[in-house]
Amino acid sequence: MKKELKAYETLEPLFNPKSVAVLGASTNPYKIGYIQLKALIDGGFKGDIYPINPKASEIEGLPCYPSITAVPDEVDLAIFCVGAEQIQDNLQVCAKKKVKAAIIFASGFAEIGEEGVMLQQDLATIAKEHGIRIIGPNCVGLVNTTNGMIGTFSPAILAVPLHEEKAVGYVSQSGAFGVLTYMAAAQKGLSFNYFASVGNEMETEFSDVVEYMIHDPKTKVITGYLEGAKDIKKLRRLAKEALNRKKPIALMKTGRSTAGSRAAASHTGSLAGSDLIYDAFFRQSGIVRVDDYEDIITFSKLFLSNRLPQGKNTVLITSSGGRGINEADRCEGLGLNIIPLSEKTKTEIKKHIPSFGSASNPIDLTAAASVTNPELYIAPLRALIADPEVHNIILTEFPLYWEADNPYLQEFIELCKNSDKFVFITTFPLDGMSVPKGKETLEKNGIPVIPGDLNPIKGLAKLVEYSESYRKHQQKTHQQEDTTIKRIDISHIRGTTLSEAQATDILDIYGIPTTKRTVATTAEEAVQFANAIGYPVVLKVDSADIPHKTEADAIRLNVQSANEVMKAFTEIYHNAKTYKADAQINGIAVQEMLPEGTEVIIGATKDPNFGPVVMFGLGGIFVEVFKDISFRVAPLTRADAVEMIEEVKGKALLKGARGKAQSDIEAIIDVLLKVSQLVTENEAVIEELDINPLIVYEDGVKAADAMIVINKDVIEKSVVGR
Amino acid sequence: MKKELKAYETLEPLFNPKSVAVLGASTNPYKIGYIQLKALIDGGFKGDIYPINPKASEIEGLPCYPSITAVPDEVDLAIFCVGAEQIQDNLQVCAKKKVKAAIIFASGFAEIGEEGVMLQQDLATIAKEHGIRIIGPNCVGLVNTTNGMIGTFSPAILAVPLHEEKAVGYVSQSGAFGVLTYMAAAQKGLSFNYFASVGNEMETEFSDVVEYMIHDPKTKVITGYLEGAKDIKKLRRLAKEALNRKKPIALMKTGRSTAGSRAAASHTGSLAGSDLIYDAFFRQSGIVRVDDYEDIITFSKLFLSNRLPQGKNTVLITSSGGRGINEADRCEGLGLNIIPLSEKTKTEIKKHIPSFGSASNPIDLTAAASVTNPELYIAPLRALIADPEVHNIILTEFPLYWEADNPYLQEFIELCKNSDKFVFITTFPLDGMSVPKGKETLEKNGIPVIPGDLNPIKGLAKLVEYSESYRKHQQKTHQQEDTTIKRIDISHIRGTTLSEAQATDILDIYGIPTTKRTVATTAEEAVQFANAIGYPVVLKVDSADIPHKTEADAIRLNVQSANEVMKAFTEIYHNAKTYKADAQINGIAVQEMLPEGTEVIIGATKDPNFGPVVMFGLGGIFVEVFKDISFRVAPLTRADAVEMIEEVKGKALLKGARGKAQSDIEAIIDVLLKVSQLVTENEAVIEELDINPLIVYEDGVKAADAMIVINKDVIEKSVVGR
Repeated sequence: MKKELKAYETLEPLFNPKSVAVLGASTNPYKIGYIQLKALIDGGFKGDIYPINPKASEIEGLPCYPSITAVPDEVDLAIFCVGAEQIQDNLQVCAKKKVKAAIIFASGFAEIGEEGVMLQQDLATIAKEHGIRIIGPNCVGLVNTTNGMIGTFSPAILAVPLHEEKAVGYVSQSGAFGVLTYMAAAQKGLSFNYFASVGNEMETEFSDVVEYMIHDPKTKVITGYLEGAKDIKKLRRLAKEALNRKKPIALMKTGRSTAGSRAAASHTGSLAGSDLIYDAFFRQSGIVRVDDYEDIITFSKLFLSNRLPQGKNTVLITSSGGRGINEADRCEGLGLNIIPLSEKTKTEIKKHIPSFGSASNPIDLTAAASVTNPELYIAPLRALIADPEVHNIILTEFPLYWEADNPYLQEFIELCKNSDKFVFITTFPLDGMSVPKGKETLEKNGIPVIPGDLNPIKGLAKLVEYSESYRKHQQKTHQQEDTTIKRIDISHIRGTTLSEAQATDILDIYGIPTTKRTVATTAEEAVQFANAIGYPVVLKVDSADIPHKTEADAIRLNVQSANEVMKAFTEIYHNAKTYKADAQINGIAVQEMLPEGTEVIIGATKDPNFGPVVMFGLGGIFVEVFKDISFRVAPLTRADAVEMIEEVKGKALLKGARGKAQSDIEAIIDVLLKVSQLVTENEAVIEELDINPLIVYEDGVKAADAMIVINKDVIEKSVVGR
Repeated sequence: MKKELKAYETLEPLFNPKSVAVLGASTNPYKIGYIQLKALIDGGFKGDIYPINPKASEIEGLPCYPSITAVPDEVDLAIFCVGAEQIQDNLQVCAKKKVKAAIIFASGFAEIGEEGVMLQQDLATIAKEHGIRIIGPNCVGLVNTTNGMIGTFSPAILAVPLHEEKAVGYVSQSGAFGVLTYMAAAQKGLSFNYFASVGNEMETEFSDVVEYMIHDPKTKVITGYLEGAKDIKKLRRLAKEALNRKKPIALMKTGRSTAGSRAAASHTGSLAGSDLIYDAFFRQSGIVRVDDYEDIITFSKLFLSNRLPQGKNTVLITSSGGRGINEADRCEGLGLNIIPLSEKTKTEIKKHIPSFGSASNPIDLTAAASVTNPELYIAPLRALIADPEVHNIILTEFPLYWEADNPYLQEFIELCKNSDKFVFITTFPLDGMSVPKGKETLEKNGIPVIPGDLNPIKGLAKLVEYSESYRKHQQKTHQQEDTTIKRIDISHIRGTTLSEAQATDILDIYGIPTTKRTVATTAEEAVQFANAIGYPVVLKVDSADIPHKTEADAIRLNVQSANEVMKAFTEIYHNAKTYKADAQINGIAVQEMLPEGTEVIIGATKDPNFGPVVMFGLGGIFVEVFKDISFRVAPLTRADAVEMIEEVKGKALLKGARGKAQSDIEAIIDVLLKVSQLVTENEAVIEELDINPLIVYEDGVKAADAMIVINKDVIEKSVVGR
């Protein structure tokens, strides 16, 4: 009996087909049917190649077949070098032939509008019915450089020579940019094992390729170009799996700017979510966000050196004071710490360098080091390796003429190998005169040598970020999470916005601290409740129809006595009715009056791409003027909640700035996690939630106001009325 | 009679000597005395070269002289290739020979500490006495590539070929980094006309070289590497002169980070001021601050295209959707606007591009444009040139095979030439396959072609910045500034901190709006004053010895009646005395109680490098939590004051955010200018000034509190007591 294949296993015939048929193979060297065939031959594809062309008997020495059904053996992969109008029929034929996978280059599908969408749906139906895995349409193709499966019509791919190490996969939502990146990376020292341009992602999407690479033992780093993920939850699940396997995912996610995201939204029809949320999502999922193809190169090369940075503490060793200062600025600008060295380390270094050098970080060995006295590198390196405060050592410049067998080079390598420091060399980018002769030996021993114009320091900063995510993930896997699922009952809800009392009741269910309160329907009841709560109290209208209570003058603070309660009740009721005659008023809520504290806002919205997203910020100008807020996609882990608070600048106020008392940050974390649970468990129902403000005290917090908006569709299904 | 030479004219023998003597010329090819001599010969120096060496008769075919006095003709420039210990005697001999200028490479002077400082002072004395202009000591030297005056011992300079255009000067406070920049620039398409490494700046400093270049007709752009300027006022004056001449100064100022500025402060003994103030100083002086040598290349190349951008509105034309999005992100990240195009322009573009392309910005012509249909570039370009909203057009990719005589290329060039748009091409950096064949023709016609890895978009952003500074400067030169100089009288001041009343009196002199107030010495006087001012009033102790009035409980707000005044007077006096028994109390100030408004802070401090620096920010958390402040070096222009307010994020509050009324921004500008005038005119006296808060209303402002600290030295000279 045949074992059921996992989804990523069914992609095997795309990446590692035993046989490939080229539909529309051509004898005309300017046609893609020829270019594709030639690419397979020139790429040295290790399996069988079947050109399909009814008019030719052979092309480039390979026998042609009139149709795919005429091929005598099994065909794993069909590459479609035909126009949009010929795809559907050909795909039917492939289905009959039991072809397992296909690459479709042709444009003219979903990206051109309605008509194309229909055409594409037809293809998708055939693919689904017959279990054919498809890359495209509207793509540049798929390449496996480890077996010569060059499934692309872009001949430029073959124009750049490959490097020996091929352990980085690359998947792109942009064809042309993907090809450019593939080539630039190869020219600058990094060859991909896989290259996939996913085009319209009709059947196989971006995340599917990521999943394949996660399970592929040849791939150590997964990189890509992303405009917008089709299925965020899937990507999040995969990111977790990749962390489990210590396999970094580094993506260039474009659309940071307004113009960029506008363009990304229209390009290839992909979904571009809010960039801020993407940032948060990547951070919490341990996906590394890079800015350019250069970062993909440097990040990958540094990761492939086979050790992870222990932290941010970085020391620069230079032979040019000026360059040292410049690179120190760069490091700190990228979040690395150029730490002051201990007296012990400095004293040791001073013994070995010229008097006009510098034993402080950045360490300046002076020009003598790179020109006349290269042995100057050894003693400072030894001292730094012995210093437990140091995590990373970056050498700018390096003795260029140290041959592989130079004893100092050997000593240098031995020192690095026997330490846990992350060490690399970034040379000043001068053509033909800045690569040390010992480069190959250095790199073989885990010490990357990268020219400065690729900005490897940024690569290090990204690797430190990954390293932190990885460490946090390892700790996280030992935590147990609360698994009791609650569901809020909205059967009695009228309209889409809940009244404050209704919203607050829901917070209560989840154990979020709220004010003592009761909704009174008569002035007498109000007095009774106020007496029970204790003075002073707050009175406010409770009505889903009046969300802006201040505007309606339907709120009274600091109500001190029974008499005042009576008066406030009457006024509020009157004002509310004046403000909105047809408002359905549940009553007047009587609440305890909260003492002053620090006001924060905790909110959640349902994003069309990400689902529920939780927001945190301090009240007032922090949010309105400084946009000083942080996001995380729900569900949150405790670490996410901690980071959300750490990320806002206003946290200084929570920690006691401006004479304020230290706030109860644990209590805020607790509310963030409970809100996360609430919006996750009720994702179908809750569109929006706001606790504004949550008042934070030295000991504890209280939600002073709450707002919840309910999904209309759900309401229409369950509306009961009252 | 000999005409008195201007300072920069006396540098002529350094940059353009008619004859050069090489002191310590050597026959040993590993000695700098040989290397320097050979560099002059190989560089093709156009004047006479005199090797000085008592032991040799000729070197490399040139006759040697035993000493400089033995040279039969005049010697303009002496290059010292001798050790520190031989410099002084040799300089004396040069003085006798009436040598006009010298380059001193040797280390062992001010940079090594006290002993070196003494040695250097002796040299400076000789130089001053005899009017010898000197570059160094402790430098790499000086190069003029237009006449072969290669005055350096760094032979690498000669290893890179030069380009035809040489119109950019470069001056560096770092020798090694300077040489690397010189070489990298040449390899990447930019040759300097001058290169100067200023070393210890003993006699000729960084700014002197800048001044020479400002007056040099061959130099169109002045660039450099700066750790800290010795004389900020001089640099500011020169920057103004450079703006007058439309000659940009673009400097890489390092020391942005804590570690970087720490290192810069110790390196070459230069003065590194606060980086924030440098930023402000550069902005207000029209000096362009660049981050790396790549920016020097791109900024210079773009400027040399001979037109200035009209603004920030930028359109991208691409043939890869992905690259377009990525570059749009980059543009917006750098402050350029990727504007939405008008319907008219989009409609016109749509007519000419494939249906699956994009007529929105970034415009995607699709791969067809760069491969099969390069004429696709023409119509969109024409439409953009016709659109008055567009300032800059950036083309990513370009048809690679357009030869110089291709008619489309010609049409492209004609379109650009007849427009005022700033147009350039940034190619994807693939070695040997991304430079259009027509590159030379394009560049000759003012359309730069720059590979993307140099990040020319950043160069454009910097050029837009320069362009704005230049335009503002042109407007400024028409303004007349207030020239009446006031001097405050401090003869009666005791101690270094003025009392609030004393400080406020000084604000009054400069016409800064202050509160109505009088210092009462008895409770009865206080009541009398309060009656005159009108209730409510504020009472506070007036004493230079009690700057923290709240801490001393020596302030009463909202005092409503004569009785309350009496009570407050007694309490404040008592509390002040309890707080500090020996405090000299001038009395109790009675002030009008100001209504609420928006609180801002205006301050000034005397920076050791910059002199008086004015600070602006909003009160409270804006300054304390967000560091939301702006600086300018005094004196301020009106434009500076406007920018200071624009730069803080909190300006939203002044403009009516959070339901506040629109504040009187003109009145704030007025106070900024008056404070600037006050601290400039009294630079010798005022160390620190703070108006905190200045309360801003819809109509007008009022200083609610003032603090001034006086320079101690001045006080010691003028102390009188009271």
